[in-house]
Amino acid sequence: MPAIPAPDMNEKLAGPLGDFAPAQIRAELHRMADWIADYRIGIAERAVSNDVEAGSIAASLRAVAWEEPAGMDRIMADLDDVVMPGILHWGHPAFLGYFGSTSNTPALLGEMAAAALNVSAMTWKSSPAATEMENVVLDWIRDMTGLPPGYMGVVYDTASVAVMHALAAARESACGGTRTEGMLGRPDLAPLRIYASDQAHSSVGKAAIVLGVGEMNVVRVQTDDEFRMDCNALERAIERDVAQGLTPMAVIATVGTTSTGSVDPVAEIGRICGERKIWLHVDAAYGGAFGVLPEGRWVTEGMDVADSIVVNPHKWLFVPLDFSALYLRNPQSMRDLFSLTPEYLRGAASDSSAPDYMDYGIQLGRRFRALKAWMVFRAFGRAGIESRVRENCRLAATLANLVSQEPGFALATPVNMAIVCIRYQPAGIDSETANMRNQQIVERVNATGQAYLTYTTLRGETVIRAGFGNILTTDAHVNAVWNLIRAEARRM
Amino acid sequence: MPAIPAPDMNEKLAGPLGDFAPAQIRAELHRMADWIADYRIGIAERAVSNDVEAGSIAASLRAVAWEEPAGMDRIMADLDDVVMPGILHWGHPAFLGYFGSTSNTPALLGEMAAAALNVSAMTWKSSPAATEMENVVLDWIRDMTGLPPGYMGVVYDTASVAVMHALAAARESACGGTRTEGMLGRPDLAPLRIYASDQAHSSVGKAAIVLGVGEMNVVRVQTDDEFRMDCNALERAIERDVAQGLTPMAVIATVGTTSTGSVDPVAEIGRICGERKIWLHVDAAYGGAFGVLPEGRWVTEGMDVADSIVVNPHKWLFVPLDFSALYLRNPQSMRDLFSLTPEYLRGAASDSSAPDYMDYGIQLGRRFRALKAWMVFRAFGRAGIESRVRENCRLAATLANLVSQEPGFALATPVNMAIVCIRYQPAGIDSETANMRNQQIVERVNATGQAYLTYTTLRGETVIRAGFGNILTTDAHVNAVWNLIRAEARRM
Repeated sequence: MPAIPAPDMNEKLAGPLGDFAPAQIRAELHRMADWIADYRIGIAERAVSNDVEAGSIAASLRAVAWEEPAGMDRIMADLDDVVMPGILHWGHPAFLGYFGSTSNTPALLGEMAAAALNVSAMTWKSSPAATEMENVVLDWIRDMTGLPPGYMGVVYDTASVAVMHALAAARESACGGTRTEGMLGRPDLAPLRIYASDQAHSSVGKAAIVLGVGEMNVVRVQTDDEFRMDCNALERAIERDVAQGLTPMAVIATVGTTSTGSVDPVAEIGRICGERKIWLHVDAAYGGAFGVLPEGRWVTEGMDVADSIVVNPHKWLFVPLDFSALYLRNPQSMRDLFSLTPEYLRGAASDSSAPDYMDYGIQLGRRFRALKAWMVFRAFGRAGIESRVRENCRLAATLANLVSQEPGFALATPVNMAIVCIRYQPAGIDSETANMRNQQIVERVNATGQAYLTYTTLRGETVIRAGFGNILTTDAHVNAVWNLIRAEARRM
Repeated sequence: MPAIPAPDMNEKLAGPLGDFAPAQIRAELHRMADWIADYRIGIAERAVSNDVEAGSIAASLRAVAWEEPAGMDRIMADLDDVVMPGILHWGHPAFLGYFGSTSNTPALLGEMAAAALNVSAMTWKSSPAATEMENVVLDWIRDMTGLPPGYMGVVYDTASVAVMHALAAARESACGGTRTEGMLGRPDLAPLRIYASDQAHSSVGKAAIVLGVGEMNVVRVQTDDEFRMDCNALERAIERDVAQGLTPMAVIATVGTTSTGSVDPVAEIGRICGERKIWLHVDAAYGGAFGVLPEGRWVTEGMDVADSIVVNPHKWLFVPLDFSALYLRNPQSMRDLFSLTPEYLRGAASDSSAPDYMDYGIQLGRRFRALKAWMVFRAFGRAGIESRVRENCRLAATLANLVSQEPGFALATPVNMAIVCIRYQPAGIDSETANMRNQQIVERVNATGQAYLTYTTLRGETVIRAGFGNILTTDAHVNAVWNLIRAEARRM
């Protein structure tokens, strides 16, 4: 055990060149614990959003002279007075924008501990516990959501980064040599084509930009009445491209689209990919979580032929930002593409069988993200995750039921998982006017500060969108949001 | 203000489908506050590392039945008994591996608050305060490190992701059309070439893989005796490539290399790039922080002609993982490349002058990273950041001084900033044997648990490397580490 030079340490824990003194460290952590407890316990009593003038917060933050240290009293006051009025409260139970907030107490505790440890899980040696827990937690997520056994997971920050890595492996699989030679000066290579439905996530387009595939080579395949990829259209698109000498590189099947939660026919897409040896990437960033329900397990059908699958526990498994899990049928292909150990990391690389996660992507600095997921899964239990996901779905169905009984309102599409898309179009109002009104309803509901919704556009029709995922949302919030929507509609 | 359905909320704050009950939320946050306080206050008394058998932690973590919820007593016990023995304590004052740990109390408080808010700073509207604080903090970092005024910053998770974005913009600048058309099927395009010194970070190679440039098109330019890029060699390499019909795409000038902290001649490289209109990316991930010292400000010389500059506050400005800042001369070029607003985010895009940071890269989910940086900068003050950076340099110089007086030991290169590279090669020992011994010294010092070092290789010579950056490190730790190194050397 190390001999600790106590007097020096005390100086560093109290002096001008070190941290706070021990008593202050403890006191400030407890003050923040209370701040967080007050915030989480009282979050429903806040306005979800506030009216903020752009630039006003920045102006206040900049107005401070910060050459010299400020006391924590002052900093905490600024947090309350300057920062908080500009916070959109994603964790509010009536926040139904985007995907529901995944915050909760065990997750917070995990984030706190991870921040205190501040390790980088780049290799097993650089952080054995972080690497091994990442391994375990990824297996838990795979197994509880019903993903194919044996697939190896890697945690990235976001699904955008995960899909970029998946498609980099797909690109290498389609044309080879991309790691060493790259893509230029190889006239033998035809343009690569990526197929995704017209409902697929924008991250596919962004990955195509980064990877040098190009946005125009992302083929947007039409969807059916319920926004699921039309497999005949996919097959025709592939055949047309092949006839023109282009190279199909990957198909993205989405399980839980962002707008409506629709689920592409993965098994059928897998058959099409399998026959032609095209990389199948399943974007289950949102919908993968649905597989924790026995009644939702059908979403995993066909995934066992996928080359890569992404699930975002920070979208719907109650793990806060950021945590995205990519599962690979053949992890070695990713490792072959990205393993690159410079001299200064030779000593960090493992001689053991444990993975060095830095070998599976571009990021070296890797926070101990597994800890928050582990805390949540342990504290709620697998059964607890299941019941909370089911409760989110029940709330969505409750709202859908209210909508379907109201004249002038209709569900824009059947409810998938926990997303409700609502179209307001009373008789005698044309589509364009209705579009404006649906957008206005969202904006006016949000302006009340009592709820938060977003809108999206489906085949030219603007619809009101509500996404459930927050474990604090109750029936009373659903009723309140619905009353707000109806009240704004009536006022028009 | 919203009408809150209190009874339901109470159920959600205590029931099986919600979070913990209010009293438990508060109690657990306080327990974790104490856990963190104990950890941070007592960190120097721990062994820096422990002997862990690969797979043993995973086995313990997996052995738990987690179908049903576990109590927090049990979870915290597992944290202590299963996880902590597998933690490499990056925050220990005698941890001198990689780059020093950036953890401290105000940063921890910021991480806690950010986790509680759990907002995504993808657009201004989705989180006004997070976006505006990101803006302010980025300007503070730019100004305190002496980066060129007017450059706009963007926060990414890591420098690897930042350099990938910078080089994507460089690629577009070099050949155009990469966003839409991509890189294949364009026989007019010659292979692109990236130039970086033989000491540059591995992230350049990984970016070249992702971007389809290819590793073999990363030209490793030789360095001088002090590991700085040889500009004559750079110029020759560019001219040779141009003569062969290749297209120079970007030069990476490193300010603070990972192995030795060496600084490339940025001004001269800038002249070479300027004459030929080649993108200049400055990798100041580590060394940018040195610019906060008046005596270190010289490292910014020549940066005013750079197209992009990366500085990692999580490497040396006391901001914990993850936080990497990319500065752009022409941010519009990045926006033109990556702005892509899908239907479901139309309502989130800003009509105001505030930036929507999602437009500057691929990542949509963006944690409120600015908050921890803001807390650190406010709590320590700019002057406090300066004195702590200077103290790290003083400790490095102290170790270097001890080394240079010891027979058999030598500095492998002059100390740059706060990195010390030590070569142990007593008379009569050949280079290969010495290489083995230097590696062994590091491994044996680490095995004592009293300190942590890494090794690297410089022109075939393995050297012991110590990086300072932790605000808790004292002279006593420097002496202890040095005594350990000498003792292990003597034992051979």
